[in-house]
Amino acid sequence: MLLPAPIQNLINAFERLPGIGPKSASRLAFYLLRAPEDIPTQLAEALLAFKTQTAFCPECFNIMLNGREHCEICESPARDESILCVVEEPMDVLAIERIGAYKGKYHVLHGVLSPIEGIGPEDIKIKPLLARAAQGQVKEIIIATNPSMEGDATALYLRQQIQPLGIHLTRLARGLPVGGDLEYADQNTLLRALSGRQEMG
Amino acid sequence: MLLPAPIQNLINAFERLPGIGPKSASRLAFYLLRAPEDIPTQLAEALLAFKTQTAFCPECFNIMLNGREHCEICESPARDESILCVVEEPMDVLAIERIGAYKGKYHVLHGVLSPIEGIGPEDIKIKPLLARAAQGQVKEIIIATNPSMEGDATALYLRQQIQPLGIHLTRLARGLPVGGDLEYADQNTLLRALSGRQEMG
Repeated sequence: MLLPAPIQNLINAFERLPGIGPKSASRLAFYLLRAPEDIPTQLAEALLAFKTQTAFCPECFNIMLNGREHCEICESPARDESILCVVEEPMDVLAIERIGAYKGKYHVLHGVLSPIEGIGPEDIKIKPLLARAAQGQVKEIIIATNPSMEGDATALYLRQQIQPLGIHLTRLARGLPVGGDLEYADQNTLLRALSGRQEMG
Repeated sequence: MLLPAPIQNLINAFERLPGIGPKSASRLAFYLLRAPEDIPTQLAEALLAFKTQTAFCPECFNIMLNGREHCEICESPARDESILCVVEEPMDVLAIERIGAYKGKYHVLHGVLSPIEGIGPEDIKIKPLLARAAQGQVKEIIIATNPSMEGDATALYLRQQIQPLGIHLTRLARGLPVGGDLEYADQNTLLRALSGRQEMG
């Protein structure tokens, strides 16, 4: 038996999302067959609206409402514009904002350098970052790329480019995750925790 | 920082789907921000179309294209109408059709009896099943509810109702899953495999 086309189309559309395989896709589609009407409608409307109603901030490349000049963070006078935190994706901004401890501004690269995937400095927002750095008001740049091979390569590339500008350059600390267990930490994490050991004052 | 409303709406809509928590929902939304335009559009269109374009077969309650009189299986002259396979959900029909060995017809209950959730015989498609059984052409009914507490309770209830009609009543075999390992089988499965042991002919 072939599934009726409208259901098969829905399964196919779900399958194109990351992390949703054929089984989850059909489970979702069959769930929606019996779910309250507004669940699929609400999702459909949100899917159609979000692209036209959002844009990237021309200053920091975080997401913002379409039609605004800059994102909320760039526009806020409460944020310290002498510190920039450089992240890979808009989601990372959200993660850092959630801790509520950072009062500087951001710069979203929209990717990382990855020679294997053919992603070079021109393909991510490095040039606009260097332009912001060269304007003079930035005193510290915190590199907050992921602790991955590509994240590290991107951090090293940025160091090369930013060091000549005489800006204080830092990066997020590596070490044992809080609540983690030393016994289960991988060798690299343990090595970083050891070599980066902090004074107990 | 609050997320722009269109993104937050999209995250909320994803979160209403089963098996998608807050983290997966935001990952999906942020993925779609950078994904090819047609991925969200295709999903939105499929979501809006499937409800109006499908319906349940009035005979077996499987899904069918809206506007047809019956589903493909009920309409097919190649299917043996003397055997009915009773399943919980339309997805189960798909699972049995995939093995390609069953040539009878189906009956989809759209649920199982569950006193805890307040689901009684009137809430699922038991009456129409008994009506089909009473018409006379059905010689065997295969109960293919899930091997769960609710599935078993539903099977027992159906036996009570169907036995007086003098129809041959069977249910799917319980035992070791093919490719499984006896050592890892749970006690109940092993007990069922032993008590239901089959002749080697």
